Amino acid sequence: MRPSKVEIVEVGARDGLQNEVAVPLEAKVALINALTQAGLSKIEVGSFVSPKWVPQMADSAQVFAQIERKPEVSYCALTPNLRGLEGAIEAKADEVAIFAAASESFSKKNINCSIEESLARFDDVMAKATELGIPVRGYVSCVLGCPYEGEIDPQQVAWVAGELYRRGCYQISLGDTIGVGTSDKAVAMVKAVAQEVPMEAIALHFHDTYGQALANINACLDLGVACFDSAVAGLGGCPYAAGASGNLATEDLLYMLEGLGIETGVSLEDVAKAGADICTALERCNGSKVAQAILAKAQQK
Amino acid sequence: MRPSKVEIVEVGARDGLQNEVAVPLEAKVALINALTQAGLSKIEVGSFVSPKWVPQMADSAQVFAQIERKPEVSYCALTPNLRGLEGAIEAKADEVAIFAAASESFSKKNINCSIEESLARFDDVMAKATELGIPVRGYVSCVLGCPYEGEIDPQQVAWVAGELYRRGCYQISLGDTIGVGTSDKAVAMVKAVAQEVPMEAIALHFHDTYGQALANINACLDLGVACFDSAVAGLGGCPYAAGASGNLATEDLLYMLEGLGIETGVSLEDVAKAGADICTALERCNGSKVAQAILAKAQQK
Repeated sequence: MRPSKVEIVEVGARDGLQNEVAVPLEAKVALINALTQAGLSKIEVGSFVSPKWVPQMADSAQVFAQIERKPEVSYCALTPNLRGLEGAIEAKADEVAIFAAASESFSKKNINCSIEESLARFDDVMAKATELGIPVRGYVSCVLGCPYEGEIDPQQVAWVAGELYRRGCYQISLGDTIGVGTSDKAVAMVKAVAQEVPMEAIALHFHDTYGQALANINACLDLGVACFDSAVAGLGGCPYAAGASGNLATEDLLYMLEGLGIETGVSLEDVAKAGADICTALERCNGSKVAQAILAKAQQK
Repeated sequence: MRPSKVEIVEVGARDGLQNEVAVPLEAKVALINALTQAGLSKIEVGSFVSPKWVPQMADSAQVFAQIERKPEVSYCALTPNLRGLEGAIEAKADEVAIFAAASESFSKKNINCSIEESLARFDDVMAKATELGIPVRGYVSCVLGCPYEGEIDPQQVAWVAGELYRRGCYQISLGDTIGVGTSDKAVAMVKAVAQEVPMEAIALHFHDTYGQALANINACLDLGVACFDSAVAGLGGCPYAAGASGNLATEDLLYMLEGLGIETGVSLEDVAKAGADICTALERCNGSKVAQAILAKAQQK
């Protein structure tokens, strides 16, 4: 059941940098160019949201305009509404992403509406994107726990994931937003979702706040999941607990997949170099253990 | 096959602190007392080696003398030779540990003799400990890779582990000294060792240098392994790459085991507190993601 090849969706420049101090446009462009060179096939570039909400993403249009694209790479944008989609279209994003929560409390606190309402709000985004042939990815947050509700019923996750899939998302990325899940729960959740969404349309977006992301991915690989989201250098931190870790580091994921003999098409060394550079720009410690080990070994020589 | 209960061997005060800057005696004693209170049943206290080799462990006799012991807890000492064993006996260590490498190059560079010679050297330690009824634990290093040789044949690991077991070690702790292993290799190695050593006498001592320790333990739990070594706050770093991580953090292991419903008898909260205190004493970042998340959440309140 374990795939021989998986796709990594690199979310560092968006899900990562939106939770870091703002970095100059040039650093973002350099990061994305380096990630392209490293062999990543899908890279989140930015989001088209109000700069009042997320000032770190205010320059997404300029980032899209300045990056050097490879035709085989898909450059994605997060688009919370029709206005966002229009920005993404103008910026020539190859695909866009919408999002919903698996937790009612999280949905209400985060985007001020119920899950059902949030799904309905995306209908116009979905219609317009479909009309233009732009693929839409759907994110579900809080799939293994919610900062307000605690545990989340896998059936609830399956319902939200199924709704996004039926409304036209080509892939559903299941997010452990606060990184609380452990492997048995991750497996049970994926199995529940797979009743509503084909396994080949499931991606996992596990945060590493409690150090469990790789163990959880390792277990879910055996179910046949073949797409994983991660962020170079573990960029991002945890917006629900300042000082805690957030996104799983791409380097750590790559190291595991290489060790398991699973193909990714991505150069670990090149990703680690891109991560080291952006951490320098951010004046931030590198959140990847693999990168720390690689850098430490390089300094010994 | 997965155990419902596992034992954690806390190695922070020895395998951890021997790779940190020296801390005052009182801080060590306070750490071990806190670990005892947290419910750990086996705690490495120190080692009886030449202070020229490991100055951080020079005060092990005093540490043993000053800690408050609980009768149900086993306080262990590393004893590289008969002289070390005598020190451990005098200090009233409940058990002692000896070690061998699974890599010839590592054995030669680290203790200046072949694996075979190193095993023979422990015969007098074994005889004396057996005579006095002191249990002896055997460590095997480099079980998933060697800094000099690279990959290590699982059969070689099985041979060394079997030798230590047949010579009288009641338990064999298999160390991924440089933290390079991934889960398939870990599983294959444990399966090979289980041909020579009963599964219930196997412990795993996986370093987290490349972030793989929990994924590897998760996979090996399903083989029936029920004893794991870890260090509070991930103390220790990697002696083969300054700046890289070393020991798996006890907090991260506990979090995973709790999530899987596996009993340990240890309080995660109390271990995290002990870890925060020793990190303050060391002026060191906390190497446990779980501890970072717990501390970050506590500061938010």
